[in-house]
Amino acid sequence: MKTYIKSDSWKIIEEEFNPDNQRSSESIFSLGNGQMGQRANFEEKYSGSSLQGSYMAGVYYPDKTRVGWWKNGYPEYFAKVINSPSWINIHIRINGEELDLKKCKTEDFIRTLDMQKGLLTRSFNATLNNGVKIKAEASRFLSMNDPECGLIKYTITPLNFTGKIVVDPFIDGDVENEDSNYGEKFWNIEETKSDKDKSSLIAQTKKLDFKIAYCSTWTINGTADVKAYNTSVKAGSIIEVPAVEGKTIVFEKYTGIASSLNHNSNSLLHIAEKKATNAKSKGFDQMEKEHINRWAEIWKQSDIKIEGDIKAQQGIRFNIFHINQTYTGEDERFNIGPKGFTGEKYGGSTYWDTEAYCIPFFLATAPPHVTKNLLIYRYKHLQKAIENGAKLGFTNGAALYPMVTMNGEECHNEWEITFEEVHRNSAIAFAIYNYIRHTGDEQYLDKYGLEVLIAISRFWAQRVNWSNKKKKYVMLGVTGPNEYENNINNNWYTNQMAVWCLNYTIESLEKVKKSNSNRYNEIVEKTSFNFKEEVSLWNEIANNIHLPYNKELNIFMQQDGYMNKIQQTSDELPQEVRPINQHWSWDRILRSCFIKQADTLQGIYVLEDKFDTETIRRHFDFYEPRTLHESSLSPCVHSILAARTAKIEKAYELYLRTSRLDIDDYNNEVHEGLHITSMAGTWMSIVEGFGGKRVKEGNLHFNPVIPKKWSEFSFKITFKGDDMQIKVDKDKISITSYSKKEFNIYVYDEKITVKPQVTVSLKLKPNYYA
Amino acid sequence: MKTYIKSDSWKIIEEEFNPDNQRSSESIFSLGNGQMGQRANFEEKYSGSSLQGSYMAGVYYPDKTRVGWWKNGYPEYFAKVINSPSWINIHIRINGEELDLKKCKTEDFIRTLDMQKGLLTRSFNATLNNGVKIKAEASRFLSMNDPECGLIKYTITPLNFTGKIVVDPFIDGDVENEDSNYGEKFWNIEETKSDKDKSSLIAQTKKLDFKIAYCSTWTINGTADVKAYNTSVKAGSIIEVPAVEGKTIVFEKYTGIASSLNHNSNSLLHIAEKKATNAKSKGFDQMEKEHINRWAEIWKQSDIKIEGDIKAQQGIRFNIFHINQTYTGEDERFNIGPKGFTGEKYGGSTYWDTEAYCIPFFLATAPPHVTKNLLIYRYKHLQKAIENGAKLGFTNGAALYPMVTMNGEECHNEWEITFEEVHRNSAIAFAIYNYIRHTGDEQYLDKYGLEVLIAISRFWAQRVNWSNKKKKYVMLGVTGPNEYENNINNNWYTNQMAVWCLNYTIESLEKVKKSNSNRYNEIVEKTSFNFKEEVSLWNEIANNIHLPYNKELNIFMQQDGYMNKIQQTSDELPQEVRPINQHWSWDRILRSCFIKQADTLQGIYVLEDKFDTETIRRHFDFYEPRTLHESSLSPCVHSILAARTAKIEKAYELYLRTSRLDIDDYNNEVHEGLHITSMAGTWMSIVEGFGGKRVKEGNLHFNPVIPKKWSEFSFKITFKGDDMQIKVDKDKISITSYSKKEFNIYVYDEKITVKPQVTVSLKLKPNYYA
Repeated sequence: MKTYIKSDSWKIIEEEFNPDNQRSSESIFSLGNGQMGQRANFEEKYSGSSLQGSYMAGVYYPDKTRVGWWKNGYPEYFAKVINSPSWINIHIRINGEELDLKKCKTEDFIRTLDMQKGLLTRSFNATLNNGVKIKAEASRFLSMNDPECGLIKYTITPLNFTGKIVVDPFIDGDVENEDSNYGEKFWNIEETKSDKDKSSLIAQTKKLDFKIAYCSTWTINGTADVKAYNTSVKAGSIIEVPAVEGKTIVFEKYTGIASSLNHNSNSLLHIAEKKATNAKSKGFDQMEKEHINRWAEIWKQSDIKIEGDIKAQQGIRFNIFHINQTYTGEDERFNIGPKGFTGEKYGGSTYWDTEAYCIPFFLATAPPHVTKNLLIYRYKHLQKAIENGAKLGFTNGAALYPMVTMNGEECHNEWEITFEEVHRNSAIAFAIYNYIRHTGDEQYLDKYGLEVLIAISRFWAQRVNWSNKKKKYVMLGVTGPNEYENNINNNWYTNQMAVWCLNYTIESLEKVKKSNSNRYNEIVEKTSFNFKEEVSLWNEIANNIHLPYNKELNIFMQQDGYMNKIQQTSDELPQEVRPINQHWSWDRILRSCFIKQADTLQGIYVLEDKFDTETIRRHFDFYEPRTLHESSLSPCVHSILAARTAKIEKAYELYLRTSRLDIDDYNNEVHEGLHITSMAGTWMSIVEGFGGKRVKEGNLHFNPVIPKKWSEFSFKITFKGDDMQIKVDKDKISITSYSKKEFNIYVYDEKITVKPQVTVSLKLKPNYYA
Repeated sequence: MKTYIKSDSWKIIEEEFNPDNQRSSESIFSLGNGQMGQRANFEEKYSGSSLQGSYMAGVYYPDKTRVGWWKNGYPEYFAKVINSPSWINIHIRINGEELDLKKCKTEDFIRTLDMQKGLLTRSFNATLNNGVKIKAEASRFLSMNDPECGLIKYTITPLNFTGKIVVDPFIDGDVENEDSNYGEKFWNIEETKSDKDKSSLIAQTKKLDFKIAYCSTWTINGTADVKAYNTSVKAGSIIEVPAVEGKTIVFEKYTGIASSLNHNSNSLLHIAEKKATNAKSKGFDQMEKEHINRWAEIWKQSDIKIEGDIKAQQGIRFNIFHINQTYTGEDERFNIGPKGFTGEKYGGSTYWDTEAYCIPFFLATAPPHVTKNLLIYRYKHLQKAIENGAKLGFTNGAALYPMVTMNGEECHNEWEITFEEVHRNSAIAFAIYNYIRHTGDEQYLDKYGLEVLIAISRFWAQRVNWSNKKKKYVMLGVTGPNEYENNINNNWYTNQMAVWCLNYTIESLEKVKKSNSNRYNEIVEKTSFNFKEEVSLWNEIANNIHLPYNKELNIFMQQDGYMNKIQQTSDELPQEVRPINQHWSWDRILRSCFIKQADTLQGIYVLEDKFDTETIRRHFDFYEPRTLHESSLSPCVHSILAARTAKIEKAYELYLRTSRLDIDDYNNEVHEGLHITSMAGTWMSIVEGFGGKRVKEGNLHFNPVIPKKWSEFSFKITFKGDDMQIKVDKDKISITSYSKKEFNIYVYDEKITVKPQVTVSLKLKPNYYA
């Protein structure tokens, strides 16, 4: 844990430069705009430890799989998010000495991420070894308004000397990934070019032929002597300017970046140049203004305000800011990697995190097409998921979606995850249901959803087998959400969700059959669907699946045999052995009763309607003390269920942990990148936890509570086209409609009609679930 | 499966050269002498596909571990048996063209491994592209009498021309391992040297500083023009001789090889030179004679004769030959790798194979010190096994011996094997018991055995836990001998063997306490042993462990939950999906009921005394049809139990599979090397299976049967210092004593007294177990 970030309601602030924190800050202060992202690497040369990171959405590299002991069915490659050519470089030489914060004395350092504006700024005074002292300021943004542009303003003021400053802005193609499996570089640099006022570079990935063109142009105040240069991997300019004590040199760098994902390969350089020169002609301030306006629109719908708790406020905005930087929902080819644009780890972009965590966020805070694009992404991968199923021995169009993927092909190669953590399939099915119930877009089912549901249900029907012993269907050899158990039998979550999938598919089939028989027949033909046989088998399985249950405790068991373990609670586990996966050997972890992340509770969270408060509480009381939350995806679900069972302070404690996971570096790993997908979980823990937001039978519900420390919190929701703000204070919940039409919602299960543009307030019932 | 090897009772013969079989033949025709080994690579240049393999016992390389997803506790390196500098090279150029069997026309090719003599010979006629035709003959042995010497005689007879032949004998240090994890080479060549009649090379491993010196000297008939040469990695001579039609050129190469394992590093070259020149002065024929004499001694004690079944005869001799080539028992630092000196696969030398398979062979066919050295090997690794245990969280001197090791440190890195296939510990304990009951060397227990037993029992006591649910001790998260199940609970074999270990340790403690109280006290102090507490816990566990059992079937279950699987038998599994680990994804293998190798039956085999024939038969009938024998270690145990339950033809079928596994390449992998350790299992299947050899309560028993196809078989046994031959024919069993004293044995559980040097015959009871 590190707590060097200063609290502020809208800003992330680092005062004082400490090289030990540089990698962490590079993650925390990252910028992105949906199309690209950039870690907060310095513009000037930095010889200290740093993880260089410049990432382009959808551009990846199939890095040859590294595996100790090959197993049949393992994928050949792992898709890596690639560190791309670096466009931020502005090296500075002052009187012949390189400005390098690792080597000079730094004072009054302050780095700020203004989350409201999407701006990264930095200022410091530096005294070089040659005695010169300067003040520098850097300001950077990746335009949300024009996502192919990145702008930097860099100023230097000589404080104690007159002499010569060399500004060396360049684009650098000599980059690599730290996690390259075999130490290979991933880029070929095709072309570099420099002239008096601009430099450009074209890079192509060594495999898959992704191509990106970069063009930087610049302005500088005052006279300058310019020499353009380029090498085989680099293009830049040497700009020599006189340094006059007290006189500020203002340098602006405008970079256009065009990717073959969006444009014809031959036109990339042209487009990058146009982007750069257009930006330059608009000017830094105008571009910045347009960028900030776009952020204002985003915040308008997705901001959460918390009064009385600045750390919580900062935390939630940090989370909302980063998810929105990562995914803007305009391109169905993109998805949301666990680290977004902030690091290399976890490489491949798509995990079940998207469906289980991110989609609830986007459904409530963004227009429907944003979520729909995430769904279409999986729809387009259906054929590959069916092929993946076939590779593992499944037949008849059964689909197993990959655990980790970029283009629909499985990338991961641990058998206990790749082949066995199959519950991801259910999350993908549930997301279809979730999308439709939130947006009311019933058409989605006919057009896309049903095919996916059929393929997933076919998988479940083959993945279970009849146990003659138990006289039940069983599902053997799985890994549940709790990855601290592998190859277990009858994971309750997995089995329960499989049943849900089967039932929802049957229901959906019947719905489409009735409402759109043409399309229904088309799907039947396309999938060779045998309604009678398949549906009857699915019903049979759904009604006769084994769900491990302990009679004495009256709770569902995470899996068969869980109670044969030594039962301990997390408070018996000393801090120095945590996280246990860094201290214990894997067998010991597997034998222990300790849970990495919500598993049975995850199922209860997802299917909450099936359970009464007492049942939820019993399960929470049993599982929570056994859960270590060593996955970032865990605390938010527990926080929601804690709120659901009137354990408000427990919910608050878990909320803090999830919301400040990265700012305060709880797991000592923020240097690798941020936990982007779990950030959506943080949002859930406020809106669904404290706000008590639910959708039941097509209706929106709120059963709010408020943590002791907060005087008020508010958030926005969009539901079936109606926008509203929910504000909760110590006494009441207020619903303000931004809709043009009247709508109904439920508060504490009581139906409320909200008229257009008015605010309705109701008394808070803090003990509703007590 | 490949069946190109010609049947012969003493020889392995390949007629006709087929490059597709070259790698397989290189394995099958391998030579070794305990100190070193050599695949049957050609002396002359060969540009076809080949696995070069020259191996030195005890010389290994800690190759940096390759792992996809790191888990805490994984080892940093995998110890690799190293392909060492090649001393066999004799390149031949005829009238300017290189002799290369890949490039010329070959006739009358015959390659022979004379197992009686330990000789590899090869002859062929070759027509080169330049039209010249020659006859060549090569003869090679690695001296059993002087294990630092390798000799080759190579003759060439020009058949249709007169001209010039260049013989180029050299030592080549430019070698590599095909399975190097990161493509590194493992050797530094320190020195190369050549003069008129000898060449030498000193090589040092890049890590661990193993050093080997090679010196080759030679003779050639007739006049020759010699030019010595050396490069940084090679040392040799260019020997130009006139080629005269019909006149045979005889070239002999004498190589001395000295390793820093056996000599002071500074003297290596001197010793290698001495070895080479001594061999040369003795001459090829004399050296060969001494070598053959040593083999005769080995065969005298270990040969098995089978009449009436040449394939079975060839098979068993092939197995006995290769085990004896691999390990001669003179050095307690050596052990027996699964591939011996015949390939790179499985790298690290020591697996549980040694204790479970090889030790029974050596106990019965070699002097006691041979087995004792294998035991001492583990005794010397005890401290590292305790450290390994500590690394996995075990305390109080609990030892977990590694799954794969060279020097006592764990090398393997699959969590389900490394951390969970813990039954290896029991095999090591059982070997102590087995050694003592065979040799009568009770002292071993005091001196070495007890310390190992205590450490192993401590491990078991911590590896189980009390299940409040079952009211039994359970052992969670293990992999049994059947590696087609991972992370299972209560593997019957593992639990049952753990109980055996606990009981045997208690018994041994009491024995030593009584018989040697000084040593007992010394051990108690050294191990901080608390007799009262530890023994009472061990008793408690041994008496209350959960052993999965199915009441209906009245058999022990391989593990908890086995009967929840779909029950199928191997005859339902089409040949084209076998071996399943090459066709099925791992989850599918794990979910299936199919067994890779003997597991429950392994336990019944080891602890046979505990079970009556009916019980054994019930288990065999249940498990055998579910077993795929996709481990080479499987069929032999099943063969023994088939014989034990009067299923003689089943036993025979399984015997053939194990004995000709490599000759006929059942698993399509012989090109990677031979299954050396399972070869000992083949011996077991004759001696313990058909011969019915058992040791019960300190006495030697035989309950022989004979397969239909055999008219007679015989083998030798040494037991507590008494040597004997057992011969079984259709009517009788004959025991011939080679002992100087009278001894008792049991035949069909009847006590027989055998007088010195006489033969006793008894009627065969082929239906004794029916």
